Amino acid sequence: MVKYADRMENVKASDIRELLKITDRPGMISFAGGLPAPELFPVQRLKEVTIRVLEESGTNALQYSTTEGYTPLRVKIAERMNKRYGTYLTERNILIICGSQQGLDFTGKIFINDGDVVLCESPTYLGAINAFNAYRPNMLEVPTDNEGMLLEQLEHILDTVKNIKLVYTIPDFQNPSGRSWSLERRQGFMRLMKGRDIPILEDSPYGELRFEGEMLPSLKSFDKDGSVIYLGTFSKIFCPGMRIGWVAADERILEKYVLVKQGADLHTAGITQRNISMYMDTYDLDDDIRKIRSVYKKRRDAMHNAISEKFPEGTRFTYPEGGLFTWVELDEGIDTREILVECLEHNVAFVPGDSFFPNGGGKNTMRLNYSNMTEDKIEVGVKLIAEIIRKYT
Amino acid sequence: MVKYADRMENVKASDIRELLKITDRPGMISFAGGLPAPELFPVQRLKEVTIRVLEESGTNALQYSTTEGYTPLRVKIAERMNKRYGTYLTERNILIICGSQQGLDFTGKIFINDGDVVLCESPTYLGAINAFNAYRPNMLEVPTDNEGMLLEQLEHILDTVKNIKLVYTIPDFQNPSGRSWSLERRQGFMRLMKGRDIPILEDSPYGELRFEGEMLPSLKSFDKDGSVIYLGTFSKIFCPGMRIGWVAADERILEKYVLVKQGADLHTAGITQRNISMYMDTYDLDDDIRKIRSVYKKRRDAMHNAISEKFPEGTRFTYPEGGLFTWVELDEGIDTREILVECLEHNVAFVPGDSFFPNGGGKNTMRLNYSNMTEDKIEVGVKLIAEIIRKYT
Repeated sequence: MVKYADRMENVKASDIRELLKITDRPGMISFAGGLPAPELFPVQRLKEVTIRVLEESGTNALQYSTTEGYTPLRVKIAERMNKRYGTYLTERNILIICGSQQGLDFTGKIFINDGDVVLCESPTYLGAINAFNAYRPNMLEVPTDNEGMLLEQLEHILDTVKNIKLVYTIPDFQNPSGRSWSLERRQGFMRLMKGRDIPILEDSPYGELRFEGEMLPSLKSFDKDGSVIYLGTFSKIFCPGMRIGWVAADERILEKYVLVKQGADLHTAGITQRNISMYMDTYDLDDDIRKIRSVYKKRRDAMHNAISEKFPEGTRFTYPEGGLFTWVELDEGIDTREILVECLEHNVAFVPGDSFFPNGGGKNTMRLNYSNMTEDKIEVGVKLIAEIIRKYT
Repeated sequence: MVKYADRMENVKASDIRELLKITDRPGMISFAGGLPAPELFPVQRLKEVTIRVLEESGTNALQYSTTEGYTPLRVKIAERMNKRYGTYLTERNILIICGSQQGLDFTGKIFINDGDVVLCESPTYLGAINAFNAYRPNMLEVPTDNEGMLLEQLEHILDTVKNIKLVYTIPDFQNPSGRSWSLERRQGFMRLMKGRDIPILEDSPYGELRFEGEMLPSLKSFDKDGSVIYLGTFSKIFCPGMRIGWVAADERILEKYVLVKQGADLHTAGITQRNISMYMDTYDLDDDIRKIRSVYKKRRDAMHNAISEKFPEGTRFTYPEGGLFTWVELDEGIDTREILVECLEHNVAFVPGDSFFPNGGGKNTMRLNYSNMTEDKIEVGVKLIAEIIRKYT
């Protein structure tokens, strides 16, 4: 037997991964994945754009290119963020990566020594837990409420725990909870972090998918000392299969990401970067995003109504103002993994919530995705899950 | 100042990276990069293929997909390797990655603990040194001759050095030396490694670019105990800007790569995988490769002739039977970095050879790439370098 590095003990098959293989079955109503609605992908327009990219700059698009990414795309991303999120960025703050998941891995690589403490929301994104785990951190969960991390408890942790190397946050329409940080909480959080020299990772795949209420400024926009590292992606506002995301950070920190990217895969595919760049030059991405929002809003409503009607009285669930997920908390003592087994027999799927707690717990919770199913399927699926839940209550 | 992980001390800006920025200047004759000839990229055909992929399976191509990669492409890669390299692989042995550089990074992550020993050829590929360095190995160079690693010396190292976790090899048209391992050396190497349970990484980006002589069986084809991990790529036989490579390994080991890929970036872009797959179904990739070989052979000849004629008598240089690089060894005492400075002033570039020795040395060596320049530029450039060398001898 060959010997693996010690870190591989921490790199385990996620059971969600196995679950998602089952949910590919035809006829399955799946609220499990975090998949965008494929019927909204701009296939025809992308075809036109690809043709033009290959005709106008085919050889450049297909040659090796710079690690930082395609400059016109970096410029557009910086401008877009400045307009939407109140940041002050230029292309020199932007590195193009293969989806924001790659930014999570790089962040682990750049900051985490064995045993270092990473603070995260409780619950938090499973893919981040997986990415960080390879660097063997001590994941410490900060309690949260509907407005974000609880600042008093965060302050206590910051003041008493050693070796805190990173704070991982998802302020907008969090995965898995669907909740967003309030403006006050964002400001308070940044005040609390000020001067501590602890990098803050702001993971924002869903920020632009707000159905109602006002868009809130990003943590990055409050960043005075350059300690906020922002991860963005085209996966939820364009399509995920091109694998284009970005890191936006202070130049001094971004240089580390560039070096790590160089060693990790040289650069992101030039052809896909140029396709998105030309798409943004040719069409109105905002218009596409408005369509996505309007479809997801209806699905959110359908799910919210179905849960309100069908789930046992007293069930707590979040009301996401945007994004892809709702979070449900059942009575203590119910194990959603047991419920899932029976649900799968009836061709309906969700993700048991305990996967999102790096230190265990949350056995009575579940994450429901609504972006990938039509409204009638949402109704049928939620009803099915509700019936099975009732057997256990 | 934020604190980085200790491993970042090992992740440094390569000066080649800085060099390559300069060589972008118009009018530069560059033998520095490892760039394929862009005029051979099948731009028109790729356009047709992309249109078909988007028309026939656009939404699938643009949605999230499996970490392992697009199955029809994995099947074709396995079949192709079996035919060419004498392996016995199925799609279950293949993981699609973002260029073979990503396979180098994953290999480091999977096998290397701080201080573990990695054996490599001396000299060896700079990109591998960079990728591995993030995992803080002790890179131990095995002396080589024109036929590969010296087996007696390798045996001595294997018998006396502890914590050897990996042997890194580039048996075909090695980067940077251009040399290939002989059949006898391959067989002897595999005999020597047998039963030691040390994984062998066979990095083969250039294997199919043989200009003359017979294609030799891969190390993977001699692999009885599943310890050879093979890295392949479309970068040199198709185009690098799509960033598609693969890992071919025993299923038990490949599962580790799949897990690491999942955490690192979920999966490689579906659209680019499907484009290559459909390209291979529609056109004869072997025909393209024959064209690439014939162009590179002429360039190799031009470079070989120019070096023979112009460089100082007694200069040693390799005669690559394939691939992209020639390796030149000047008189002891000559520093090719000094020569480079003057060459850049005259708009000609190469890579100083010391970059390819992880533990230093090789100051009198240089790597010359011939795939990216036309024959007349090769003649002019080599003559210019020769004139500058003469000043230092």
